[in-house]
Amino acid sequence: MQALPIVGHLIGGEIITPDGRTQNVYNPATGKAEKSVLLADQRTVEAAIASAQAAFPAWRNTPPLKRARVMSNLKQLLEQHADEICRLITAEHGKVLSDAMGELQRGIENIEYASYAPQLLKGEHSRNVGPAIDSWSEMQALGVVAGVTPFNFPAMVPLWMWPLAVACGNTFVLKPSERDPSSTLLIARLALQAGLPPGVLNVVNGGKEAVDVLLADTRVQALSFVGSTPIAQYVYATGSAHGKRIQALGGAKNHAVVMPDADIAQAVSAVMGAAYGSCGERCMAIPLLVAVGDATADAVIALLKEEISKMRVGPGTDSGNDMGPLVTRQHYDKVCGYVAQGVAEGATLVVDGRNVAAQPGYENGYYLGACLFDRVKPGMKIYQDEIFGPVLGVVRAQSLQEAMDMIDAHEYGNGTCIFTRDGEAARYFTDNIQVGMVGVNVPLPVPVAYHSFGGWKRSLFGDLGAYGPDGVRFYTRRKTITQRWPSAGVREGAAFSFPSAQ
Amino acid sequence: MQALPIVGHLIGGEIITPDGRTQNVYNPATGKAEKSVLLADQRTVEAAIASAQAAFPAWRNTPPLKRARVMSNLKQLLEQHADEICRLITAEHGKVLSDAMGELQRGIENIEYASYAPQLLKGEHSRNVGPAIDSWSEMQALGVVAGVTPFNFPAMVPLWMWPLAVACGNTFVLKPSERDPSSTLLIARLALQAGLPPGVLNVVNGGKEAVDVLLADTRVQALSFVGSTPIAQYVYATGSAHGKRIQALGGAKNHAVVMPDADIAQAVSAVMGAAYGSCGERCMAIPLLVAVGDATADAVIALLKEEISKMRVGPGTDSGNDMGPLVTRQHYDKVCGYVAQGVAEGATLVVDGRNVAAQPGYENGYYLGACLFDRVKPGMKIYQDEIFGPVLGVVRAQSLQEAMDMIDAHEYGNGTCIFTRDGEAARYFTDNIQVGMVGVNVPLPVPVAYHSFGGWKRSLFGDLGAYGPDGVRFYTRRKTITQRWPSAGVREGAAFSFPSAQ
Amino acid sequence: MQALPIVGHLIGGEIITPDGRTQNVYNPATGKAEKSVLLADQRTVEAAIASAQAAFPAWRNTPPLKRARVMSNLKQLLEQHADEICRLITAEHGKVLSDAMGELQRGIENIEYASYAPQLLKGEHSRNVGPAIDSWSEMQALGVVAGVTPFNFPAMVPLWMWPLAVACGNTFVLKPSERDPSSTLLIARLALQAGLPPGVLNVVNGGKEAVDVLLADTRVQALSFVGSTPIAQYVYATGSAHGKRIQALGGAKNHAVVMPDADIAQAVSAVMGAAYGSCGERCMAIPLLVAVGDATADAVIALLKEEISKMRVGPGTDSGNDMGPLVTRQHYDKVCGYVAQGVAEGATLVVDGRNVAAQPGYENGYYLGACLFDRVKPGMKIYQDEIFGPVLGVVRAQSLQEAMDMIDAHEYGNGTCIFTRDGEAARYFTDNIQVGMVGVNVPLPVPVAYHSFGGWKRSLFGDLGAYGPDGVRFYTRRKTITQRWPSAGVREGAAFSFPSAQ
Amino acid sequence: MQALPIVGHLIGGEIITPDGRTQNVYNPATGKAEKSVLLADQRTVEAAIASAQAAFPAWRNTPPLKRARVMSNLKQLLEQHADEICRLITAEHGKVLSDAMGELQRGIENIEYASYAPQLLKGEHSRNVGPAIDSWSEMQALGVVAGVTPFNFPAMVPLWMWPLAVACGNTFVLKPSERDPSSTLLIARLALQAGLPPGVLNVVNGGKEAVDVLLADTRVQALSFVGSTPIAQYVYATGSAHGKRIQALGGAKNHAVVMPDADIAQAVSAVMGAAYGSCGERCMAIPLLVAVGDATADAVIALLKEEISKMRVGPGTDSGNDMGPLVTRQHYDKVCGYVAQGVAEGATLVVDGRNVAAQPGYENGYYLGACLFDRVKPGMKIYQDEIFGPVLGVVRAQSLQEAMDMIDAHEYGNGTCIFTRDGEAARYFTDNIQVGMVGVNVPLPVPVAYHSFGGWKRSLFGDLGAYGPDGVRFYTRRKTITQRWPSAGVREGAAFSFPSAQ
Repeated sequence: MQALPIVGHLIGGEIITPDGRTQNVYNPATGKAEKSVLLADQRTVEAAIASAQAAFPAWRNTPPLKRARVMSNLKQLLEQHADEICRLITAEHGKVLSDAMGELQRGIENIEYASYAPQLLKGEHSRNVGPAIDSWSEMQALGVVAGVTPFNFPAMVPLWMWPLAVACGNTFVLKPSERDPSSTLLIARLALQAGLPPGVLNVVNGGKEAVDVLLADTRVQALSFVGSTPIAQYVYATGSAHGKRIQALGGAKNHAVVMPDADIAQAVSAVMGAAYGSCGERCMAIPLLVAVGDATADAVIALLKEEISKMRVGPGTDSGNDMGPLVTRQHYDKVCGYVAQGVAEGATLVVDGRNVAAQPGYENGYYLGACLFDRVKPGMKIYQDEIFGPVLGVVRAQSLQEAMDMIDAHEYGNGTCIFTRDGEAARYFTDNIQVGMVGVNVPLPVPVAYHSFGGWKRSLFGDLGAYGPDGVRFYTRRKTITQRWPSAGVREGAAFSFPSAQ
Repeated sequence: MQALPIVGHLIGGEIITPDGRTQNVYNPATGKAEKSVLLADQRTVEAAIASAQAAFPAWRNTPPLKRARVMSNLKQLLEQHADEICRLITAEHGKVLSDAMGELQRGIENIEYASYAPQLLKGEHSRNVGPAIDSWSEMQALGVVAGVTPFNFPAMVPLWMWPLAVACGNTFVLKPSERDPSSTLLIARLALQAGLPPGVLNVVNGGKEAVDVLLADTRVQALSFVGSTPIAQYVYATGSAHGKRIQALGGAKNHAVVMPDADIAQAVSAVMGAAYGSCGERCMAIPLLVAVGDATADAVIALLKEEISKMRVGPGTDSGNDMGPLVTRQHYDKVCGYVAQGVAEGATLVVDGRNVAAQPGYENGYYLGACLFDRVKPGMKIYQDEIFGPVLGVVRAQSLQEAMDMIDAHEYGNGTCIFTRDGEAARYFTDNIQVGMVGVNVPLPVPVAYHSFGGWKRSLFGDLGAYGPDGVRFYTRRKTITQRWPSAGVREGAAFSFPSAQ
Repeated sequence: MQALPIVGHLIGGEIITPDGRTQNVYNPATGKAEKSVLLADQRTVEAAIASAQAAFPAWRNTPPLKRARVMSNLKQLLEQHADEICRLITAEHGKVLSDAMGELQRGIENIEYASYAPQLLKGEHSRNVGPAIDSWSEMQALGVVAGVTPFNFPAMVPLWMWPLAVACGNTFVLKPSERDPSSTLLIARLALQAGLPPGVLNVVNGGKEAVDVLLADTRVQALSFVGSTPIAQYVYATGSAHGKRIQALGGAKNHAVVMPDADIAQAVSAVMGAAYGSCGERCMAIPLLVAVGDATADAVIALLKEEISKMRVGPGTDSGNDMGPLVTRQHYDKVCGYVAQGVAEGATLVVDGRNVAAQPGYENGYYLGACLFDRVKPGMKIYQDEIFGPVLGVVRAQSLQEAMDMIDAHEYGNGTCIFTRDGEAARYFTDNIQVGMVGVNVPLPVPVAYHSFGGWKRSLFGDLGAYGPDGVRFYTRRKTITQRWPSAGVREGAAFSFPSAQ
Repeated sequence: MQALPIVGHLIGGEIITPDGRTQNVYNPATGKAEKSVLLADQRTVEAAIASAQAAFPAWRNTPPLKRARVMSNLKQLLEQHADEICRLITAEHGKVLSDAMGELQRGIENIEYASYAPQLLKGEHSRNVGPAIDSWSEMQALGVVAGVTPFNFPAMVPLWMWPLAVACGNTFVLKPSERDPSSTLLIARLALQAGLPPGVLNVVNGGKEAVDVLLADTRVQALSFVGSTPIAQYVYATGSAHGKRIQALGGAKNHAVVMPDADIAQAVSAVMGAAYGSCGERCMAIPLLVAVGDATADAVIALLKEEISKMRVGPGTDSGNDMGPLVTRQHYDKVCGYVAQGVAEGATLVVDGRNVAAQPGYENGYYLGACLFDRVKPGMKIYQDEIFGPVLGVVRAQSLQEAMDMIDAHEYGNGTCIFTRDGEAARYFTDNIQVGMVGVNVPLPVPVAYHSFGGWKRSLFGDLGAYGPDGVRFYTRRKTITQRWPSAGVREGAAFSFPSAQ
């Protein structure tokens, strides 16, 4: 039996593979372990931090324009290597290739935004805050910053963080998910090729041990996290207790509201992708559809059933498939458990995806077909919990206000959307709903890269969102200078003509 | 013996004085207890939070222009009542009246900034983030936010916080220092008079118990704190553990660097005010002067001695005095202890203010004269600790780099300044120093109200500074809307002519 | 027979009344001449320019915060003197008092915006545009700038201009309309009282001769104009030929589009005020209503007739009246001529206001009742020309696209609005229409003071709109500084310890 | 004898070479005509305008992100084709290749800035300008805009204009200098290759006839011009008379002030490049050095003489040369005439470059060596006129104020710089000098691409500078939308549940 290839760390510009604990990386399409990823211990994480610390002074002083150009170069390289990156995503995460390409594309948009650094880093200058006194602010780099990212977007979420952080002059230690580390690592190596000096970006693979080092080490100035809410809260509390600036993005349970006046066919088509795309393993997925009025609900259910019947489930490498496998066996079991629980709680299981047939050669993959519940109610676990699987629940409400009250009562406030053509309904909804990212006839209202990403309530801990303007603010530290010059005597006087020796 | 007047709370637009624990408020000029302040228990703080919560929906929906106008009205009222406010400050804090007036003036500038709310709250709008898809951000109010403020600026520091917070649409619970609460409370009452609806601003007096309620109550969305570093860190960690957004400003030990080419007389004159003004009880005071070169140090010491000899110490109500008393007996003892320790540690006590003579009728006041040390060294406690008293230490360095290394090695990074006429020295200093607020020939580089206040290192926990642009960001929550409208069919088609029944 | 009171000029802080040409100022409610206004000759205008020029250096160097405070003071004074100002407006312009109050209120909002000057004047600062090279921009004052304003808003339009201009550090020469100069002049005197130094704002009354001096004098750096399109174009061409920066706002013919799905009653109610308020003498009035669909048109006409029948016309001093007189006898004749022409051109005169009965004592006033045409068509003069009177024409279109094509084909592009509840229709309209200010269910979409005012096509000559962000840009001149400091040798070397002689 | 290659126009994505007038394009290094450029007549220019007009609707609706990506692509292509482009510049303009590369690099930076379009085009959004009323601004494209550019930067100056204009959604007609059109045209062809749709950028070669069409045609919304002041003023006046928005950048005569405390060697080294680089044919060249104090002047002159003696003059293709030829024979004669006039006026000709020896094979090139005058005085023509040749004049002043008074009295106010190490002198100079672009120890303070370029006085006609933030504002038209939605009745009521037919 042959040893699995080892996935190492990137520190100081080199891939290193020290001895130590490892964990298998599985291909969810086949259920086979194909690689083994190193799990960094304290010493390795500290080496990464030290590397970043050493690279900081020179990188901080590199003009923003030059830092930005590395980002432009990287963008080109990612476009050239897109297929290779996406194949790695699919092989470790399971999502279909077109989905991987969509993720990479979104990540590239964040690199584009990072390449605006000269514009984004402008401070504010005030002449004459007092007589002949000027004051201005500079948004300076923090030093070493860290990022901890989840399995579901191994390319995109890291690209929300480090390109902007390094474009702002910081150096970075990234800990991606240990379940699908390879695409992340490839992108980091391409960044070196794009001109990023060694040590500016370091990648350590690992688990909680590695995260705890990053949270405690005094050299790490700030940390961005994306993951589940309990871990996000742990990260926020722990990092804050160590005096750091932390932004921690957690879970979600996004509701789509369908109004009676909506274009129902268009709404259903949009929700299909939002509910089942990437098997629902997205923090901006739509696992709940609130239909306003029973007639609306009936029409929605009928159309959804029809659409689901056309779906194909199978390995992500086959682009004819709509859904690939779930990410792990354990996650598969957990999602199936929620389906059973929904039935037990009294929701109507309209479509049961648990009996999906495996394609030949993929019998051990973690495939689950689309599941659809009707008559889901707020008290149920399948309403409350983030399932992160291909399970869509339809909730019936009698008015927009009832739908909004449900949403506002939910623990999470990441994203939501409304389908309507009525301007007033849309404005009332977007203005009042207690959710951070709101779509109007847009099912996945992920803000574009030049705006910022951030939920409300227990979907985000911290005051600044990810990427965009908030990202710039998070990755910089304000310095305010107030300046006056002493009396004009020197300028005017004889003393200004230097001593006779000249 | 007559009961002392009671200082109550302001909740829901009314001054309330429930039964409960109290604490004496002393006049530091005489050492006499003159008032008794209520210390809020959990129930009282929760009543304040409930009042703020109730006032939120209507206030949030009040157009920013109208909220801003309340701030303009308040500005006028503060100008009309300035004498009364300043007399309260002096009677409870001790600082001389002109100093109190300076503090109030700075606070009014923050109100002016808050009155720019319509401009400050503009979000970003992007047309065509995709085909016929628009996206924009709104900076919405958080809900109930809280502030906890220190004794040293009872008027100004609260005005850093709540005017901007309420101008942004939030409602507020303020817990000022229990040592000098009266001016804070008067200003709050004037805000009501200016048109602030009851419940939008609530003031509770109290101590740690009250703070802990504010940190834990889930209705409080965010909290701003100014105080000492240990408490700031406690507040940051505790509030963060409760999932809140927190900004916590802590201690300082600000160095002034005097270069050999500086206008020494101007530098010394500036440092005099920065070191001894308000008895050094300011987080932007200058307790350390780093002289570059022994000749510079000698010249500086000589001039300082001369200036100190002209100083007058006495009650703050007499505007002929340069310094009033320290804030409390305990604080007086603590500062005197530091002076003794400095001598013990080997620093040269050039001027000893401990023997200052009390003015007749003020024998029990907490008066300490200006103290001046030469040859203070980084290892000493009087170098490391924030003394918060009229104690200036001169440190001798042989180069600017040595001076900067000292500053960067210090725990705090609030403010600093350099005295020089050399452009290159100033730029090198301001660019590289690890301090958040930097002056060039400006001894107290407190940013003006339309910039933001914030130290680095252990002087600030959080990612956003106080007031100015950072304050706006802290007191608002980003909501990003992405909008497309369904097909033009309705607009173009016959269906748009509504059914005949209408 | 008694001489009429003389309306003079305000130059250098003094009202002056030099000998020279005059013109009567009439009360349009009675038709009686009540004052005589001086018409400045070249010498007087040059004196005003010289006064402004002399005041410039000190005013430019006054910190923006102090300049802003004068604006805050002025706001208070205008609120205190509102009645007096509005009575002057009504006495000379004719509009009803409540209308005058609305105008003044809008003007005050511009003063509020001007009081944000410290925020608005921030430049952009870039650290390290190259190695150790910084660059920043300052938005500096221009010097002497001028404004020429129309009769229809004697308080508001001047307040669009000079408060922002002087808050930016400029000094100003204002030439208001010679038909109703008194309220303008009173406001200018209150500005002096608010603390504006003499010479910073100068007011000269006059006509074309005065304007031509302002356009040609090399000391005048920029000029803002609001008036009719032919004069606007003359001003733009002439001032530009003299090398100046000019913004010249001209005429308008604003269309309101009413869609079949609109709340017709609400739309008609809104259009009533927009069409007939201030007798239609507004550049943002709605003289054309485009009804989409004949059913819509019929419903609109029916409701308009009913609403018009309730209107009262009479002197503006009686707040029970809906409309006051037109501004002059000549203008009255001109508007009546247009009504006759509309009939001749074939439009249907549904309501004829020409026979309105005068109230007793006001028989010589210039009263014209509301006129309503149906079936107005693009080829007609009453469609093409800006009538500036209480004449509303209804145009019938069969689709939104037809309505938009009409609007886009019109010479003017100042304002427009659509009444609908459909989000897609609103977005399509606002996105594509060739008009600068667009309302959705808002009949007079005059941007608020913290946005900017400006039409498209022949409604604005120049690239920057009035007031708001564009106003700031117009009244400032960019200066960009690029700075590096010579080698660190001086800082590091012995030479920095100055020669022993010191 | 062989016909010269024809340089045609680029219209609608095709190079066209219609019959018509032509003009020779010379290689200034050899004096030989090497190409023949077509001079567009009215018909050709109108075809270009029509092509741009036709391309506008689709391009305007292309999301800014996609437009920006074309710019990123173009950047890559220019880097790949840099040698080819620079050889064309040198062959037609004469400047040395390294200089051409510098010019191209600056142009590429403007393309980088244009690629920030999604960020740059953000409008301002205000929630609740009134109750439930929102307002926002969109910066929309103008339509067809034009640019007219000078011979001295055939790559860079066009790249100041059209990339930003098209990134903002406009379509463009460019008329480059007819003396060196080939590099401009090559870049335009590369833009097509980068993905710019045909018709979005059109290039017409020609002279005044072509410009006059662009100024008069009503389809052209705006025009940017860079050239000499008399033509700039003609363009500004003429375009404005046609109601267009115009920015016209004119001539310069930039002074460098050298203070006694400056690092003289560094200052002289910097001025050498600024005075003689590209033969002084730059609007940001330094043709005047004001030395403060005679000792300074003597030291400066001595060093300049020494540096000049080391210079090499010859064909630009040889990168060992410091200066290439002047652009044309006529220009050579004009510059020589100024040298003679300087002598006649009484200035001291310290170095006479008129006798420079031609390198073998280049005897007919237009070579002029560096000329240096001492004791130039404000009254002289060589002080007042923009010579645009390798002629540096030293002026002697006795104080900084005297130097500044000279600068402020000069017709032009494009750029200036000061050499000093004194912070106060630098601040006094930058604050008060009447010049738009100011350097501190930076001889050519051309703002970086993310700031804006613009002189004061007669160096710029218009209110907005070139490129950077001002460029964005120039190439966009503000549209302000004010929106409210009709009553919630529809949302709340039964009617919202659509008719039973559904």
